[in-house]
Amino acid sequence: MEQPKTPEMSANSPIIAVIGGANPAPEEAAAAEAVGRALAEGGAILICGGRGGVMEAACRGAKAADGLTIGILPGAHRGEANPYVDIPIVTGIGVARNAVIARTAQAAVAVGGSYGTLSEIAFALAFGVPVVGLGTWEITRAGHPPAPITYTATPEEAAARALALARPGQ
Amino acid sequence: MEQPKTPEMSANSPIIAVIGGANPAPEEAAAAEAVGRALAEGGAILICGGRGGVMEAACRGAKAADGLTIGILPGAHRGEANPYVDIPIVTGIGVARNAVIARTAQAAVAVGGSYGTLSEIAFALAFGVPVVGLGTWEITRAGHPPAPITYTATPEEAAARALALARPGQ
Amino acid sequence: MEQPKTPEMSANSPIIAVIGGANPAPEEAAAAEAVGRALAEGGAILICGGRGGVMEAACRGAKAADGLTIGILPGAHRGEANPYVDIPIVTGIGVARNAVIARTAQAAVAVGGSYGTLSEIAFALAFGVPVVGLGTWEITRAGHPPAPITYTATPEEAAARALALARPGQ
Amino acid sequence: MEQPKTPEMSANSPIIAVIGGANPAPEEAAAAEAVGRALAEGGAILICGGRGGVMEAACRGAKAADGLTIGILPGAHRGEANPYVDIPIVTGIGVARNAVIARTAQAAVAVGGSYGTLSEIAFALAFGVPVVGLGTWEITRAGHPPAPITYTATPEEAAARALALARPGQ
Repeated sequence: MEQPKTPEMSANSPIIAVIGGANPAPEEAAAAEAVGRALAEGGAILICGGRGGVMEAACRGAKAADGLTIGILPGAHRGEANPYVDIPIVTGIGVARNAVIARTAQAAVAVGGSYGTLSEIAFALAFGVPVVGLGTWEITRAGHPPAPITYTATPEEAAARALALARPGQ
Repeated sequence: MEQPKTPEMSANSPIIAVIGGANPAPEEAAAAEAVGRALAEGGAILICGGRGGVMEAACRGAKAADGLTIGILPGAHRGEANPYVDIPIVTGIGVARNAVIARTAQAAVAVGGSYGTLSEIAFALAFGVPVVGLGTWEITRAGHPPAPITYTATPEEAAARALALARPGQ
Repeated sequence: MEQPKTPEMSANSPIIAVIGGANPAPEEAAAAEAVGRALAEGGAILICGGRGGVMEAACRGAKAADGLTIGILPGAHRGEANPYVDIPIVTGIGVARNAVIARTAQAAVAVGGSYGTLSEIAFALAFGVPVVGLGTWEITRAGHPPAPITYTATPEEAAARALALARPGQ
Repeated sequence: MEQPKTPEMSANSPIIAVIGGANPAPEEAAAAEAVGRALAEGGAILICGGRGGVMEAACRGAKAADGLTIGILPGAHRGEANPYVDIPIVTGIGVARNAVIARTAQAAVAVGGSYGTLSEIAFALAFGVPVVGLGTWEITRAGHPPAPITYTATPEEAAARALALARPGQ
């Protein structure tokens, strides 16, 4: 576990999620790392599912900028956390933990995406948590407006939008 | 609670979910009721979130055909079940119970849809549970095939497809 | 899956839990089977954790009396249910599902006991669900009254007490 | 939110739970505060249920010693956290979150106790997490050894024992 302290953090640090799959394409992993770094540089605490792939890349990026990282693990053992997780929360509730990530976050960045990612986007939308997308799902329904996801083109833009949109605690 | 027995039920009764929002349009509620009825007539046990709207309509339809209905409730009290739920499962875990519905179902029919419904579709897809859509979300991603949802045009077709696709227990 | 219907069941069938460990002593398994049978004969629907040991014995007893059995499974697959479970609820939330069993039950009979059983007793007490004990934990605290568990000496007495104490739906 | 950094924290900081009820006696609240302070002074990260009573007192004590505090909230809003929680994890899964606290902790100190506390003790024992008691439940079973709780007489002793017993990450 890295030392969980950083000069950038303060009483107003928002908790921002990076969500994405365990088996990303290389460019998705690179994007997730850049998002994680930019979020930490922007003063956010990173929350994610705590495992590999997009989750690990985002944590690695955040730690490179001395950020604090929280991993909401699905399984029963803290050893399943990636090495860049400072605070492993060992839920044991499987993918139902996706609801916990979405509830705790004040904004979320979806990078690429598996169906697990889709469930996290869905929960964030249900909870009113702003969702920023980077190469992720588009969700539409005939006769209805599309789901309110803010699509972005670069990791830096994604992080900046998430930092700007992060809702205050409630 | 209705009497939970029915001549159609047997050792091979599949458990099929009807998923949809608490505040459907009138035609969505009517569709959900017809799906519930057709599933029960086809010998399925109905599982849903146990509350109002699409959930209640589906249960009402199933009971009209003497089906058995299971409600996976989010809250802490069985009183939140709609009156057509035979077996109220009082989870107390909030919308994280959507994962329980998706895991327990052997196929799912999505009628209309809120973001909660979207989370259930996402979980079903993640778990490999066949998803049949009736006026619900379309989920796409640039450069990838769309999510494997079987779209149908009528409640009867939706129920028939779900009964045909229901995976065996595993 | 057994055919989930029975003449004893009606709109007023209480849902009663049998809780106990996966590795009971032989006499505990025999007691659990007798409790399950007596509960079904008394018209109750049986709910339990759905796995082996006390859970399987209780379900076997209930099925011998044509009862309906519900298994709230901790894992991700219905195949982990014992063969006497009619309705497998596949939660995927691990032992957190103990809270679901305790919330859904209108009374609970604890047979023998592991620490998992202790957690279910604790949740039942927290939720105000009557707890009947048969060779199970005693829970005391200096300067306070002991936990309100109704201790019994035989399976038949345990089942009768649970049927009498079962709280109405709420 | 307090600034989540402290000189005492390092890569080896254990996460230790303080568990106890929302409505403690005044001396229990005072004991919880002293335990929280001593744990932080000993370099631990504090985890708890994040609400009032014993939870708030323990967090207040930890913050007085510049510790880091994590609150695993049962409800749907971070606003239910007490003001001394640095990292609110908003689970929305109700008291099933007690399993998350017990799994995440590397040791637990139970102060006083409600039935919720009893469920956390039970889960900790089930998971092999060392439990230290301070005026809490005694759990026995005829013909079996009592539950392996380390009873202590003072907050300082309780914290010292928990720090000594904290199991390594696994």
